[in-house]
Amino acid sequence: MGSVDMDEQVTERAGRRRGRTGGGGAARRAERTSTAIEAARYITRNVPNLDILHDEALEIIEANAETILWEIGVNFVNNPAALARWKDAGAEIDGERVHIPRGLARQLCATAPRTFTQHARNPERSVEMGGRNLVLAPVYGPPFVHDAVSGRRYATIEDFRNFVKLGHMSPWLHHSGGTVCEPTDVPVNKRHLDMLMAHMTLTDRPFMGSVTEPSRAQDSVEMCEILFGKEFVAENTVLTSLVNINSPLTFDDTMMGALETYAAANQASIVSPFIVGGAMAPVSVAGTLTQVAAETLAGVAYSQLVRAGAPVIMGAFVTSIDMNSGAPTFGTPEAAQVTYGTGQLARRLGLPYRSAGAFCGSKLPDAQAAYESANSLNMGLLAGVNFMLHACGWLEGGLVASYEKFVMDADQLGALHKLAAGIDMSEEAQAMDAIREVGPGGHYLGCAHTQRNFKTAFWRSRLLDYKPYETWSEEGARDTVALASVKVRQMLESYSAPAMDPGTREALDAYVAEKKASMPDAFS
Amino acid sequence: MGSVDMDEQVTERAGRRRGRTGGGGAARRAERTSTAIEAARYITRNVPNLDILHDEALEIIEANAETILWEIGVNFVNNPAALARWKDAGAEIDGERVHIPRGLARQLCATAPRTFTQHARNPERSVEMGGRNLVLAPVYGPPFVHDAVSGRRYATIEDFRNFVKLGHMSPWLHHSGGTVCEPTDVPVNKRHLDMLMAHMTLTDRPFMGSVTEPSRAQDSVEMCEILFGKEFVAENTVLTSLVNINSPLTFDDTMMGALETYAAANQASIVSPFIVGGAMAPVSVAGTLTQVAAETLAGVAYSQLVRAGAPVIMGAFVTSIDMNSGAPTFGTPEAAQVTYGTGQLARRLGLPYRSAGAFCGSKLPDAQAAYESANSLNMGLLAGVNFMLHACGWLEGGLVASYEKFVMDADQLGALHKLAAGIDMSEEAQAMDAIREVGPGGHYLGCAHTQRNFKTAFWRSRLLDYKPYETWSEEGARDTVALASVKVRQMLESYSAPAMDPGTREALDAYVAEKKASMPDAFS
Repeated sequence: MGSVDMDEQVTERAGRRRGRTGGGGAARRAERTSTAIEAARYITRNVPNLDILHDEALEIIEANAETILWEIGVNFVNNPAALARWKDAGAEIDGERVHIPRGLARQLCATAPRTFTQHARNPERSVEMGGRNLVLAPVYGPPFVHDAVSGRRYATIEDFRNFVKLGHMSPWLHHSGGTVCEPTDVPVNKRHLDMLMAHMTLTDRPFMGSVTEPSRAQDSVEMCEILFGKEFVAENTVLTSLVNINSPLTFDDTMMGALETYAAANQASIVSPFIVGGAMAPVSVAGTLTQVAAETLAGVAYSQLVRAGAPVIMGAFVTSIDMNSGAPTFGTPEAAQVTYGTGQLARRLGLPYRSAGAFCGSKLPDAQAAYESANSLNMGLLAGVNFMLHACGWLEGGLVASYEKFVMDADQLGALHKLAAGIDMSEEAQAMDAIREVGPGGHYLGCAHTQRNFKTAFWRSRLLDYKPYETWSEEGARDTVALASVKVRQMLESYSAPAMDPGTREALDAYVAEKKASMPDAFS
Repeated sequence: MGSVDMDEQVTERAGRRRGRTGGGGAARRAERTSTAIEAARYITRNVPNLDILHDEALEIIEANAETILWEIGVNFVNNPAALARWKDAGAEIDGERVHIPRGLARQLCATAPRTFTQHARNPERSVEMGGRNLVLAPVYGPPFVHDAVSGRRYATIEDFRNFVKLGHMSPWLHHSGGTVCEPTDVPVNKRHLDMLMAHMTLTDRPFMGSVTEPSRAQDSVEMCEILFGKEFVAENTVLTSLVNINSPLTFDDTMMGALETYAAANQASIVSPFIVGGAMAPVSVAGTLTQVAAETLAGVAYSQLVRAGAPVIMGAFVTSIDMNSGAPTFGTPEAAQVTYGTGQLARRLGLPYRSAGAFCGSKLPDAQAAYESANSLNMGLLAGVNFMLHACGWLEGGLVASYEKFVMDADQLGALHKLAAGIDMSEEAQAMDAIREVGPGGHYLGCAHTQRNFKTAFWRSRLLDYKPYETWSEEGARDTVALASVKVRQMLESYSAPAMDPGTREALDAYVAEKKASMPDAFS
């Protein structure tokens, strides 16, 4: 039988794209010469969600969350404007504590859109957040990187660019993410400029904005105005950014400042409790779900107070703690239960849902890493997650972005696409002609139905080892990490940047140069 | 905070057990001195099944399966008695082909019990097959073993005994399985005697009988009559054995001979298509499901023709083929879809369901092995599987039983227990007192609710690395395989056999010695 080069799911090629801003002859020339990149459309699930909580349980959690918001309240720190907004909306303010009357937060959430489009500069790479969709993005935030040759070290801007390139080359990623690693060799106050440049120039997929200062969020919007056009940005969402809640029940001014900037510009925020269960939330799943419900209700409601109708995603980053060592643990059953339950809460609120990822606590891309990551990825798909950050590359509790694990996880994401597509029940798929043709005791390898369908029948890893033992042994008995190292090198060597209008590129370069020149370097 | 020694789920200790047959003083003395072994009760799921097919799809599959049974038929090879049984039941016979009228197989299946108890010699280790239960058993069938030091080699009876011991020491396994590896150093015609002796003496959990010849099935029953007492075996199920169907649509006389022996003795068989999709079934999921439905309907119906009411499990071993290399692949989305779908078919038939396992194609217990295994284990839990063979130790497409992977997979099974338990919604679990006590900006590490609950709050791996980076690094930067190697050694060194009545042991020894003396060695 012949070779299977392409999966059915990878139907689009970036070579066909039409850049929105790239109208010039140079752009067209660049486009013609750029390498075609395989890229799957974001997942639209044709499988049910796993609803592990009964309605009565969800109602208890929601009622308790309202009790928390009213009786305990939430803190908005160093943020008089936020307190004023809440007061106007009908909350009671006590110092920095906001007591939200029962029903108010839920009512405010109602203006948030159920779904929204995040546009990419290549329109074919734009993604739809919410509904039955699942958009996959790489790891976010690690200060370290790891590769099989050099081991673990601080991340640099070169690493950052490499990960953006790997993401661009991965057919199963839909989104370029944000801080794929911290470029620690760039001053803290200028990193966001280099990171945004990488996302804007090295890929044509959607990406995230800076949240570490409101001014950096503003820079993110302004760079998007150069990339997409000012008018386009005013009317469309081109950034989705990660706004963490300081659990328990605290909204700090840095993160809220970023949220305010983005909401005012009609750009999307993910309002996301960051919870290591047992430390930032109760040691019980039901208690954690209750706190997540209260925090996201308050955060999403606040985004709507800033601008009714602003796009927002209800998030939950939840893991548990190892009560022996105090270390966060990943891929655990309690985190899965919270993820399933929060999905049900998000759907009842009619909000897009962000959670899960290729989480693991392991220091190496070994079996532990893979067990924990596979547990988390499967759980994410079935929990109805709409935006999955950290879908590849995460290592050591998120401290490390791993080159090898990036391509290992990214390969597994292909399996999620196929699983999510559901079961084809067409007459051709029922295959009664094949069963008749082959009959008892025969085999299907050569039958007509197999000939017609084998190319697209089964998902096939492009990384893992399927070779006979002897071949595998002769080729060096390589484990998954060794195969992934080769793949990383191949991908980076064959990478070519998507075409970009030279005028746009010049304007972005000028913006970044001017911003960098306007301030001294800061390293903390 | 204190140390977490025990998980909530491990509530029973073998030290408390009362042996059914061990009434003598020596047995009581042995019992008092035997080491207490932690052992979790089989899983009773408190989470929903993932039903990925609509009723209409299931009805199409069932109708197509009936069409296959009637129009194409199934072969019962070298088995005139089976053909006679089918003829008496109303089927049409054409040579060895049995054409089963629509509805007949389904009607015959109705006498199979929805659930049954498989008894262990330690009554606390007996398991309930069917319903919402999930019983976990180790890998079955590999001719090779693998360990990190010696690599891959042919399995011996010493390996076999080691794996039975490891199973006995694993708190999350409920069943000792059957051919955990092929003891290739024992003559083929005597292996079953040594294997049964190992299961009967080295553990007190339930186990499987031989299926490689009807006479060996008979030996299995007779040895059980010694272990449990003749009267007990006549009235109770003490063996569950694996009867594969030669897909497509063929029932050979060896396997059917074993099934006939067991059904006649009221012992359980798993009637299980063995399918590498694309070779033994169509390349489509719907087609494979249809064939699985037809084959299991015919097989289960046949068990009821031998003895109405005989305990039987509807099985499905399904994987797909890599159309490039022809190798079977594991942990793939198509296999998951078949597993989910077959679970729905089994529940509609009211039969216990066997499927899934820690499947992988990898040659090493590396990340590939873990991704693939975790995909399969999670899928098995959510597909409503009742008996999961191969739940640990499987490597290289089932050719190899891996020492390290045995304990790696077995550790992951603990997470399944916790996930399956569902979410506690008690007032204590709602934790409103903790949220009130801690309030915005606090932490939960020392609060009263945490103090009361932390010991049992979170599932904790007993194998994986949760240490700080520096500690881990100083201790040799070990990967999962290295940690597992240590664990294997520790478990085998600390193993002690469960107590057994000396008279029973002598009778078993005598039976085996007599049987072995009665026939020359055969090696093929």
